[in-house]
Amino acid sequence: MNGLNKKKKLNDKNILLSHGDGGLKTRELIDALIIKYFGNKILNKLEDSAIISELNSKIAYTTDSFVVKPLFFPGGDIGKLSICGTINDLASAGAAPIALSMGLILEEGFEIKHLEKILESASNVLKETNTFIVTGDIKVVEKNCIDKIFINTSGIGSISKNINISSENIKPGDKILINGSIAEHGLAVLSSRPEFNFKTNIVSDCAPLCSLVKDMLDISDKIHALRDATRGGIASILHEMANVSKKRIDIYEELLPIKKEVKSLCGFLGLDPLYIANEGKIIVFADPYDSDKILRTMKKNKYGIDSRIIGEVSENFEKSAVIYHTKIGTTILVDSFYSEQLPRIC
Amino acid sequence: MNGLNKKKKLNDKNILLSHGDGGLKTRELIDALIIKYFGNKILNKLEDSAIISELNSKIAYTTDSFVVKPLFFPGGDIGKLSICGTINDLASAGAAPIALSMGLILEEGFEIKHLEKILESASNVLKETNTFIVTGDIKVVEKNCIDKIFINTSGIGSISKNINISSENIKPGDKILINGSIAEHGLAVLSSRPEFNFKTNIVSDCAPLCSLVKDMLDISDKIHALRDATRGGIASILHEMANVSKKRIDIYEELLPIKKEVKSLCGFLGLDPLYIANEGKIIVFADPYDSDKILRTMKKNKYGIDSRIIGEVSENFEKSAVIYHTKIGTTILVDSFYSEQLPRIC
Repeated sequence: MNGLNKKKKLNDKNILLSHGDGGLKTRELIDALIIKYFGNKILNKLEDSAIISELNSKIAYTTDSFVVKPLFFPGGDIGKLSICGTINDLASAGAAPIALSMGLILEEGFEIKHLEKILESASNVLKETNTFIVTGDIKVVEKNCIDKIFINTSGIGSISKNINISSENIKPGDKILINGSIAEHGLAVLSSRPEFNFKTNIVSDCAPLCSLVKDMLDISDKIHALRDATRGGIASILHEMANVSKKRIDIYEELLPIKKEVKSLCGFLGLDPLYIANEGKIIVFADPYDSDKILRTMKKNKYGIDSRIIGEVSENFEKSAVIYHTKIGTTILVDSFYSEQLPRIC
Repeated sequence: MNGLNKKKKLNDKNILLSHGDGGLKTRELIDALIIKYFGNKILNKLEDSAIISELNSKIAYTTDSFVVKPLFFPGGDIGKLSICGTINDLASAGAAPIALSMGLILEEGFEIKHLEKILESASNVLKETNTFIVTGDIKVVEKNCIDKIFINTSGIGSISKNINISSENIKPGDKILINGSIAEHGLAVLSSRPEFNFKTNIVSDCAPLCSLVKDMLDISDKIHALRDATRGGIASILHEMANVSKKRIDIYEELLPIKKEVKSLCGFLGLDPLYIANEGKIIVFADPYDSDKILRTMKKNKYGIDSRIIGEVSENFEKSAVIYHTKIGTTILVDSFYSEQLPRIC
């Protein structure tokens, strides 16, 4: 969301759901109010993790609130999601997590057994990634003043001195990699809502990607940019990265891994998988010289078995753009999403 | 809240308001679930800020969610509160704020002009303290799924190498200081609720205390412990500090600054000012050799004009205790609060 901090006035008088979905309305709100009041050199970059280099070591710092509905879905729950989300934001900055915080806001009457399930699930990710929550807060509000439980996590991570991961570093010729198939998280959450009447076997890809990123950074110093493709899907993330780097990005349908079931459900519901949220997918921009080596390394990690090279970067001639090449040979200009297709998916 | 992390089972099946008020029920929840799933050397200290010394410099790290009702009250609002709360947690660790995060969760339909007022108020504190929000997140949930707006802030701060502030460092003979009169925040919030039918002139003490703490640390290396006396008031904070340090604390009614209006309202409502939340009061434990010098320095800062020495520490003979000496010569054993008198005051 860089380069969007021109001073603007909001036309809306009231908050809309779309002000919180990470799309264009969210950017309007950020431009009109957040940058206006809080603008500073680090925040204005609007990266998922802020990089603070005042200390002796470079620090990444990130925060996210989780309001997913329902709390439990195939492949995860709000607890697992809240840890993975923050770890993945740090990983996307090339940072190894040092410590996390967790703020719980609970509804009076919320069942303790559900809270316990959520916390246990969060703790499983912490154990797997050898990460620790070091500070936290609990608030409870009266019944009907919150929908069950919201979780905020923040995280700090350390970035090795030689690592400089940023969308600004994307170069013409860079290969674009992804660690597996897309659009599963959004559909898994959607399909677990009571109003949804289909039965699917789609499971959220929710996963912590710090080990995958570490593996990659260990064997290559030619990784230029990383981004986890959450709200808005890979389309919005690629669109943003093209904008920031002022490059042209080409991706290819025949290279992009999408599970058959995801394709059918999207076709049936009229949803575009490119725009559906993932919670365990990272997009990698790397020098073509290292891309095969990085791909082999990714495939060895359990969260990268289905990794693929899905496209490449070239110089932009007129303006930055993301071009999607379909199997039948047509090209589609990929836009950012104006509004999230599925609210409260994280 | 140290020393409470014995493994316990919760007797409750559902979340109660008191599980979120920072009192004994919150501790039960922390002991039964939080420590169970997330317990680690740093978290288990349950200090307001975690101290992370893995880096070259020592880092303080804290988080808090704010759910105050109403959003606007005499002397502040949820925006000002969310910045002051996190800055004060860092200050209580002897840390200078490096960077803050802010996670906004908004209700669909929330008025933008109110949001703007809140953000402007937060930004005023940031400017005053030369502090920056460097990362953030916005989520919007459907109408009636949240009570207007909740804000989570987290913060990281740096601690100079020679500074070691902790309740564990409290020593017999230490003087106890406070930077002004107590119980104003809780009463200001209470009196601005529509169900409250009294008219008062009580204004919240909500204020950022980082400059006050810096001034003190600049002139004395004999400050042993600091704590901002928020939820549970000075009684609960002193009780906790006595427990952690295993000392006896004596405080004196005639030394403790309480405004006349606060006294009358508390008397009328049957509330004890010792247990009412402050949002701009810090308790200082310092070597008696430096206490007068510290007091003079505090009085020079605009947030310390009414600073006083209110008591002292002695060796505990049987068990840790806080003794309150009334003006009429009686003594009261001060207990922690079991449950917050006023919910949602921060």
